[in-house]
Amino acid sequence: MSQITSPLPADKQKTTGEALQGTVIDLLDLSLTGKQAHWNLIGRNFRALHLQLDEIVATARTYADSAAERAVAIGVNPDGRAATIARDSRIGGLDAGYIEDGKVVSAFTDILGGIIGRMRERVQVTEEADPISQDLLIEITQELEKHHWMVQAQR
Amino acid sequence: MSQITSPLPADKQKTTGEALQGTVIDLLDLSLTGKQAHWNLIGRNFRALHLQLDEIVATARTYADSAAERAVAIGVNPDGRAATIARDSRIGGLDAGYIEDGKVVSAFTDILGGIIGRMRERVQVTEEADPISQDLLIEITQELEKHHWMVQAQR
Amino acid sequence: MSQITSPLPADKQKTTGEALQGTVIDLLDLSLTGKQAHWNLIGRNFRALHLQLDEIVATARTYADSAAERAVAIGVNPDGRAATIARDSRIGGLDAGYIEDGKVVSAFTDILGGIIGRMRERVQVTEEADPISQDLLIEITQELEKHHWMVQAQR
Amino acid sequence: MSQITSPLPADKQKTTGEALQGTVIDLLDLSLTGKQAHWNLIGRNFRALHLQLDEIVATARTYADSAAERAVAIGVNPDGRAATIARDSRIGGLDAGYIEDGKVVSAFTDILGGIIGRMRERVQVTEEADPISQDLLIEITQELEKHHWMVQAQR
Amino acid sequence: MSQITSPLPADKQKTTGEALQGTVIDLLDLSLTGKQAHWNLIGRNFRALHLQLDEIVATARTYADSAAERAVAIGVNPDGRAATIARDSRIGGLDAGYIEDGKVVSAFTDILGGIIGRMRERVQVTEEADPISQDLLIEITQELEKHHWMVQAQR
Amino acid sequence: MSQITSPLPADKQKTTGEALQGTVIDLLDLSLTGKQAHWNLIGRNFRALHLQLDEIVATARTYADSAAERAVAIGVNPDGRAATIARDSRIGGLDAGYIEDGKVVSAFTDILGGIIGRMRERVQVTEEADPISQDLLIEITQELEKHHWMVQAQR
Amino acid sequence: MSQITSPLPADKQKTTGEALQGTVIDLLDLSLTGKQAHWNLIGRNFRALHLQLDEIVATARTYADSAAERAVAIGVNPDGRAATIARDSRIGGLDAGYIEDGKVVSAFTDILGGIIGRMRERVQVTEEADPISQDLLIEITQELEKHHWMVQAQR
Amino acid sequence: MSQITSPLPADKQKTTGEALQGTVIDLLDLSLTGKQAHWNLIGRNFRALHLQLDEIVATARTYADSAAERAVAIGVNPDGRAATIARDSRIGGLDAGYIEDGKVVSAFTDILGGIIGRMRERVQVTEEADPISQDLLIEITQELEKHHWMVQAQR
Amino acid sequence: MSQITSPLPADKQKTTGEALQGTVIDLLDLSLTGKQAHWNLIGRNFRALHLQLDEIVATARTYADSAAERAVAIGVNPDGRAATIARDSRIGGLDAGYIEDGKVVSAFTDILGGIIGRMRERVQVTEEADPISQDLLIEITQELEKHHWMVQAQR
Amino acid sequence: MSQITSPLPADKQKTTGEALQGTVIDLLDLSLTGKQAHWNLIGRNFRALHLQLDEIVATARTYADSAAERAVAIGVNPDGRAATIARDSRIGGLDAGYIEDGKVVSAFTDILGGIIGRMRERVQVTEEADPISQDLLIEITQELEKHHWMVQAQR
Amino acid sequence: MSQITSPLPADKQKTTGEALQGTVIDLLDLSLTGKQAHWNLIGRNFRALHLQLDEIVATARTYADSAAERAVAIGVNPDGRAATIARDSRIGGLDAGYIEDGKVVSAFTDILGGIIGRMRERVQVTEEADPISQDLLIEITQELEKHHWMVQAQR
Amino acid sequence: MSQITSPLPADKQKTTGEALQGTVIDLLDLSLTGKQAHWNLIGRNFRALHLQLDEIVATARTYADSAAERAVAIGVNPDGRAATIARDSRIGGLDAGYIEDGKVVSAFTDILGGIIGRMRERVQVTEEADPISQDLLIEITQELEKHHWMVQAQR
Repeated sequence: MSQITSPLPADKQKTTGEALQGTVIDLLDLSLTGKQAHWNLIGRNFRALHLQLDEIVATARTYADSAAERAVAIGVNPDGRAATIARDSRIGGLDAGYIEDGKVVSAFTDILGGIIGRMRERVQVTEEADPISQDLLIEITQELEKHHWMVQAQR
Repeated sequence: MSQITSPLPADKQKTTGEALQGTVIDLLDLSLTGKQAHWNLIGRNFRALHLQLDEIVATARTYADSAAERAVAIGVNPDGRAATIARDSRIGGLDAGYIEDGKVVSAFTDILGGIIGRMRERVQVTEEADPISQDLLIEITQELEKHHWMVQAQR
Repeated sequence: MSQITSPLPADKQKTTGEALQGTVIDLLDLSLTGKQAHWNLIGRNFRALHLQLDEIVATARTYADSAAERAVAIGVNPDGRAATIARDSRIGGLDAGYIEDGKVVSAFTDILGGIIGRMRERVQVTEEADPISQDLLIEITQELEKHHWMVQAQR
Repeated sequence: MSQITSPLPADKQKTTGEALQGTVIDLLDLSLTGKQAHWNLIGRNFRALHLQLDEIVATARTYADSAAERAVAIGVNPDGRAATIARDSRIGGLDAGYIEDGKVVSAFTDILGGIIGRMRERVQVTEEADPISQDLLIEITQELEKHHWMVQAQR
Repeated sequence: MSQITSPLPADKQKTTGEALQGTVIDLLDLSLTGKQAHWNLIGRNFRALHLQLDEIVATARTYADSAAERAVAIGVNPDGRAATIARDSRIGGLDAGYIEDGKVVSAFTDILGGIIGRMRERVQVTEEADPISQDLLIEITQELEKHHWMVQAQR
Repeated sequence: MSQITSPLPADKQKTTGEALQGTVIDLLDLSLTGKQAHWNLIGRNFRALHLQLDEIVATARTYADSAAERAVAIGVNPDGRAATIARDSRIGGLDAGYIEDGKVVSAFTDILGGIIGRMRERVQVTEEADPISQDLLIEITQELEKHHWMVQAQR
Repeated sequence: MSQITSPLPADKQKTTGEALQGTVIDLLDLSLTGKQAHWNLIGRNFRALHLQLDEIVATARTYADSAAERAVAIGVNPDGRAATIARDSRIGGLDAGYIEDGKVVSAFTDILGGIIGRMRERVQVTEEADPISQDLLIEITQELEKHHWMVQAQR
Repeated sequence: MSQITSPLPADKQKTTGEALQGTVIDLLDLSLTGKQAHWNLIGRNFRALHLQLDEIVATARTYADSAAERAVAIGVNPDGRAATIARDSRIGGLDAGYIEDGKVVSAFTDILGGIIGRMRERVQVTEEADPISQDLLIEITQELEKHHWMVQAQR
Repeated sequence: MSQITSPLPADKQKTTGEALQGTVIDLLDLSLTGKQAHWNLIGRNFRALHLQLDEIVATARTYADSAAERAVAIGVNPDGRAATIARDSRIGGLDAGYIEDGKVVSAFTDILGGIIGRMRERVQVTEEADPISQDLLIEITQELEKHHWMVQAQR
Repeated sequence: MSQITSPLPADKQKTTGEALQGTVIDLLDLSLTGKQAHWNLIGRNFRALHLQLDEIVATARTYADSAAERAVAIGVNPDGRAATIARDSRIGGLDAGYIEDGKVVSAFTDILGGIIGRMRERVQVTEEADPISQDLLIEITQELEKHHWMVQAQR
Repeated sequence: MSQITSPLPADKQKTTGEALQGTVIDLLDLSLTGKQAHWNLIGRNFRALHLQLDEIVATARTYADSAAERAVAIGVNPDGRAATIARDSRIGGLDAGYIEDGKVVSAFTDILGGIIGRMRERVQVTEEADPISQDLLIEITQELEKHHWMVQAQR
Repeated sequence: MSQITSPLPADKQKTTGEALQGTVIDLLDLSLTGKQAHWNLIGRNFRALHLQLDEIVATARTYADSAAERAVAIGVNPDGRAATIARDSRIGGLDAGYIEDGKVVSAFTDILGGIIGRMRERVQVTEEADPISQDLLIEITQELEKHHWMVQAQR
């Protein structure tokens, strides 16, 4: 079977591929968790958070796609299957059932904070390995830190 | 904690809630599987299938949202978390790595065929239980059967 | 004077016509009541509810028009004059003057709940009488139940 | 309960508030009456009048909203409830049932003529009381006189 | 040669397929007849009818496509060739040459009335056979009955 | 009955009218045949051809309308009724049932080639008779020759 | 003062320049006359003609601009000043005051018929002189003959 | 022949009608003169002025229409025929042939200055006569004074 | 250096110029203060106020531009430099650092209230001096009073 | 290897193919030269010319594509490779480095004048050979002569 | 009072915060200065510069917002109040009154040159401190250097 | 002659200027080569590749413009004339005449692979020299590597 050739040597491809695959998992799970809260949310701030969560989901979906397509562009197969997300995701997740607005604010402050920490590491390790991929990771981190502020500002 | 009151009596709410939750899982996993193939696809028909898979993903995302919001509107909590999808989905899934275009055609013919079978059962059981929800399930089935034909026509 | 011929026999036309006229009155009064609250609302949640009420009004206006045009299409004259609404509407209405945000949430939870109850009866009685009209009534009920959830989630 | 402070002294607020409330009633009833004719119209000129009535309704709805929001902006509660319209409106109204195109033309020539007369009085009394509100009333009158001409030109 | 598999058993597929093929023929002939009148129309009401006929043609084209794609989605080949339309259509048709506006109104009142009668039978026979297809037929009938009213209102 | 006066003398009107009527028949049948293939198509190239056929249909519909309106503008009644198309069309047509992608390519290469031949004759005979109509026929031929190339390039 | 050089020899420039200047005068006066009728129109067909006249005015303005810019592109100064139009226009014009709808139909049938006659002469004389300008004159004539048919069809 | 009734008494109607008719003539001639310069302009600043003149023409056309429709709405017939413009316009006009950019700047500074002077008188005389028309005249003057500044700033 | 000539005599120009310059300063400072709060806001109502402040800023920027361009159109130089704003603004301003949502509501109720008071004086003094400028000031006041109500309604 | 069949006999195909290939080269080089000036331009008229050059480039790119696709539609291979342009182009070209605005005006007056001369010859030779291609060449010439005037008007 | 947590350690937060605050001041003052020149500009190049200045203002406003929101996202309060700008800005500013076009070109060449110098320093100091913020500063510098070229090219 | 001042010292300007000029040549030749294949392509995959090549051309044209404008912004003259491209381009190019789809896939896999190699060197050498320009080169490389994957995936 033909393969996609990589512009990177093997070790740099491996480092970069792992950073991108980690990003794909973080963002896909963020999109699922964001929708889970979007649906089960209750409380006085329902409307504001319901809309805000959809903007977070939109960011997560767009950049999961960018990171996965970037992975295959350097010859690494992204894996975004449900079982892989369930196994590899480091997002703590939400309980089933209704979620009060205040809890959504703290949960997503933590979830976004966690992803941002991992993204900043990925930015660091790809600086040498692949500045082209690093630039995408920086752009994603910028967007996530903006959402982090806007969620957190409601505490 | 306050709850959403249901326009349905308990037994009809239960039947309808299960049909909607089953739909949510089918469609969320379809969206993840569709993206997995969208990224890892290779072969002469790459471009046509790459675009077609994104249309399937768009349908899956839109109606997963409709079905989940319909569930909460009848007082049932939808569950679309990664672990729940991984546990409950009856979609067979794809192997990791590159996928040839011909395999994508057969895989999605099967996946869509399977979902359609389950959707038609859900349409049947909700006829009595909740014609309002049934109407949404019919609309979703119509869209899925259209995608099923358009994938299958390429065999 | 010429009249619009009906595709329905007289008894089915009568049943369906009453269901549609009832819908027209419910939705026109919902649109007037929604605007009344949109204007006189006060409280911390002003902005969210002010915007949400306008979405309810938009739904009410669009479907009042659909239901009325559906009535005339089956040869029944819809009546949406102010005096008719004032006389026939079963929506409890609002007091004059400023309305606090919390009261708007409970008032519209009740108002929407009442309309939904009547809509579900109309869906039932038109199943035999005119499935073409029933389909429109189902679509309207779907939209109203979505608004009902989103208002109620703020309690 | 908090209230909206007014930029106007009490007497000017009262004069202006009455002019705006009168406008709200006139325009809401115009929108209901316009729809009533839009639905029940018959005759050779059906299509032209059906569309023209919807433009009149659009004007009526837009400016009813502007006038009501202007009222609350000067600390006066607008009242647009069905019972208030039915009680206070000075629009003669239409009979139930089909309405021939020629009758629609004369009815709306009269209805618009009546509203315009009242609007010109409101423009006069607010000149002193509140030039900011007067400017809105002038704009509304301009639009209504344009519709008046275009309906009347068909006689 | 490969074929499209059907979600329906053979007898239900046959019933549904005939209903859809009948719809395709009715709507394609409606689109051709509508254009014939759009071009050859004369009389005082030229402009209103010229535009209205194009809206009928747009409806006919859109739903002929939906019905035909629905047929192939259940494994039945739609047939919309000129000879098939000429042979199978039950629309009476128009004489060649100029057509006066009054005649267009009566001709399309009859043509639409005829199609609506056949559509309501198709809605009935597919209720059991395929509720997914029935839903599309209901939607088409709704649109046609709206056009029927608006043409007829001009008599 | 009033008639549309022609800017052309009788013989030139006749020549031009025949060229335009021939164009109307060719393009209407092309639109019906294009849809027939759009629906019944199967094979590896399904998606590309399914979309390309719709672009051909769009061209055919747009210019059938232009040619027919041009005919009536010179006082000649276009005839686009199903029976006329079935009787006069020189397009060979397609067999009923599924059509493989390769056959679609050859069939439409032939169909478009045939129409182009007739269009070039019409361009020639109208040069003298009516340069205004000729200009439209040239524009149509340009578009058809572009489609001809793009279908043919796939052989 | 610098001048625009012409791609044409002097005699051809003169012939073409006169054809274009004649077109400019015809179209500018058509735009003024069309607006005059648009404003002063009365009668049952008011709305249809009021809108149709604005489409004629839009055509006239667009192509007056094209013809004038074409003139200067071949080094000839177009003259569209009010006094020139008043002096040179061969359009009969309208009486002051209200104009009944029937009179508008005959007046514009004549006005457009007159311009079309002059345009066809201009098309003929520029065939030799400048085929580039002739192509624009053909396009303008096509549009005017379409308006001519649509006005005339209402007689 | 039916007439448009006026909301104004005869003397106020006369005063206002003259102000509006004067405005129509000024603006129609401004639109013709603006196009004349748009076409015949030469010089270093060609592009800036060519575009700016088209914005002036757009303003002139839009408000000529508003003023004329306002006139008929108060029962006065606007007159915008070429001969009337040529006879009544007080705009000095331009010489035939090429016009240098510097001359365009001074000519339009003068032309706009002249119209503004007349508009300010019309604003004054309509204050009493018809504040509804006055509001339109004020809006037109505002736009013209903006163009006046932007032309003049280039001197 | 050339200057912009004024349509106003010197004293009226001075009065009007001061009113416009005061407006420019008020609105520019409102836009800066609005952004300051938009960025530093915290609290439960973060999202609603964050968006609402941007709408206030948009209004402020748009009308600062209109007022400044109006000033130069009457020959008066607007001054919107940072030092001038800092020196002349009568808006109290905000403290540095985070601002709680409740404080934003009271601060902007006061700020808008203050500007409205000054705008109503400017409306009064320009009535005689320049009704054209007055009309713009009225429009601005209308918008500011709407924002004032919508901020205040949240107390 | 399959080839595109031509609707033209060999000699007419050759004549037309050469005219189209010449057009492709002229327009591709115009697009490159236009960009070269767009980037390296300096002088007082920078902004106007910078924007105007991009409009010329847009015209050149659009019609180079049309002419090349027209060539292949008649079975002739267009050649737009850099080496072919460099070898065959008859556009004199520009010196490297900054170009003053005045020089850009004279250079593009000459370049466009040269292309127009060659286009008019191509229009002539294709009249017999292929009126369908001629029509495209006429349209291109029309656009180029408009740009020629607008560049030249700035001298 | 709650605060926004920073993803950066204190020293890096301080360095980055100062770079962002400096950017906010530079860009807000650029937007005010740009408007000042946009309004008070005179001279032959008025229109080109008037439009170009608005593009500079749009850039300045957009990125002032981005930089300020970036600051708060890392837990630093941006300060964009008028007094702060007046105190801290290092942009020289403009004199009051009319400004000739040539002076605008030199003034903005200097102003943009100065900001670019400071931006390049900020890019350098944030490379270590926060590559996420650095990326935004790079993007801003890119845009400013483009404006710098386009202003300067007009000297 | 005035020149554009550079924000860079001479050696860094030289390094960066060469990287940008190399990019301009690569991308302009890619745009020409992409169009050459877009026109002369044949084979089963015609439609997919024909569209994909136009997306590559769009990317090439957009970024050639960005790179060239970036060059002049740092005071270096870009050179994109046909002769320069023909002389300096390192893209191998295509043979004249028809090109089969499979060959297009290999040719563009190679061409894009070659450009990507050179772009990654340019990214490296500009890291020190000019991080502002480097950021643009990174963005271009990201886009090209995406196209490279999507072409290659079809092998």
